[in-house]
Amino acid sequence: MKEELVFGVNPVREALRGTREVHELYVQSNASDHRADGIIELARQRGARVIRREREDLTRLCGSSHHQGMALKVAPFAYTELDDLLVGSSDKNILLLLLDGIQDPHNLGALIRTAACAGAGGVVIPKDRACGITATAEKSSAGAVETVPVVRVVNLTKAIDVLKRNGFWVYGLEGGARQSLYDVRFSGNVAIVVGSEGDGIRQLVARQCDQMMSIPLYGGVGSLNASVAGGIALFEAARGLYGRVSVPEP
Amino acid sequence: MKEELVFGVNPVREALRGTREVHELYVQSNASDHRADGIIELARQRGARVIRREREDLTRLCGSSHHQGMALKVAPFAYTELDDLLVGSSDKNILLLLLDGIQDPHNLGALIRTAACAGAGGVVIPKDRACGITATAEKSSAGAVETVPVVRVVNLTKAIDVLKRNGFWVYGLEGGARQSLYDVRFSGNVAIVVGSEGDGIRQLVARQCDQMMSIPLYGGVGSLNASVAGGIALFEAARGLYGRVSVPEP
Repeated sequence: MKEELVFGVNPVREALRGTREVHELYVQSNASDHRADGIIELARQRGARVIRREREDLTRLCGSSHHQGMALKVAPFAYTELDDLLVGSSDKNILLLLLDGIQDPHNLGALIRTAACAGAGGVVIPKDRACGITATAEKSSAGAVETVPVVRVVNLTKAIDVLKRNGFWVYGLEGGARQSLYDVRFSGNVAIVVGSEGDGIRQLVARQCDQMMSIPLYGGVGSLNASVAGGIALFEAARGLYGRVSVPEP
Repeated sequence: MKEELVFGVNPVREALRGTREVHELYVQSNASDHRADGIIELARQRGARVIRREREDLTRLCGSSHHQGMALKVAPFAYTELDDLLVGSSDKNILLLLLDGIQDPHNLGALIRTAACAGAGGVVIPKDRACGITATAEKSSAGAVETVPVVRVVNLTKAIDVLKRNGFWVYGLEGGARQSLYDVRFSGNVAIVVGSEGDGIRQLVARQCDQMMSIPLYGGVGSLNASVAGGIALFEAARGLYGRVSVPEP
């Protein structure tokens, strides 16, 4: 049976609340607090076997000591098809995040988490020369991979073409672009392309974008890191597309 | 002689361009490209000895394989005094970032990098229960610790008090706050407090802030990570304080 391992309190909780089939929950032997009990209860409701393990065994199983006493075996990550992201794009504003060559799973996870918080309808990543949804990416996303669809495509340029033919306006985020993010009037269906930290967006992909834009900097070292830049752009687009949202009660 | 080690191409280049006294530059034996040559030239101009080492020796020296063939011994990080951040605060708008209990050096570095790019006049961190400027933080900052002053204080609450008495308005960033970031009219001297990923801003610190504010979310997993949230808040404040800046020529 093909399966993957998710670890850490938030990723495990989100996976249990998510749509992936869950198999076994491994819990550190001496873990018995409110938080652990809640997760065990959730796992039982989802039909997972609950297995107690020593901390060291969990560390070995996860290949990392950052499991917080929790690991969950789940069905492999289910990528969404690009077509599924287009459903409803004719009658509501959809915001998508396209990632060109993000290789670090922490960055990938952070960007997916931010996309989810910005209300994005999906994240598109390429199959080659880029990180997929690994346990590390899942953990860095704080479970957001369970709440926002992720599409993996063979060819990002072709995916952009499909989006454009379906009424999306595609913006590439690039440090040197003359157009300021703050001058863009976001409306309709919008896709934002973020490139890798080192190399930015590949030329072939940039040429396919409708417009390149940059975040004006007020000083510093010449560039923002990819996940911060992506966050600023996504939230600016979300403000344009979705307007004001109410702030949660304290 | 007390000294610290900085490694990676960008941190080494920024350190050479920075204000810290430089001692020795270690370069991987077989490194000889345009980039390496430029850094060696820079090191010689700063009076550093240039020493060739095998890749494995550099990895041992740095305690990490992510040195990109470059390591530099420099004088210990020179923290700035809080008073020095206040210079000029009576005749221009100063933006400061205060970090309450960021323990991960990558997060610390990322936040300092973002603060520099947002034109912040300084970053204030507490001495206890928080990460200082280590080589990892320096690398994660992409060298920004050399361009933006960092102050380390014994007591963050007292530092906030000093800032308030010097005309700063202090905002705390907190997921649950009712006041939206986007409704704040930033003006004058502004300090933004960002808490740790897990615990947020400590109550004692939050009580000392003039106002708590949150970034309205459009979905997702309930919170942004600290460095993305900090980035969105800093750039929003910078827009309010400094207005439009020109985008660099492509």
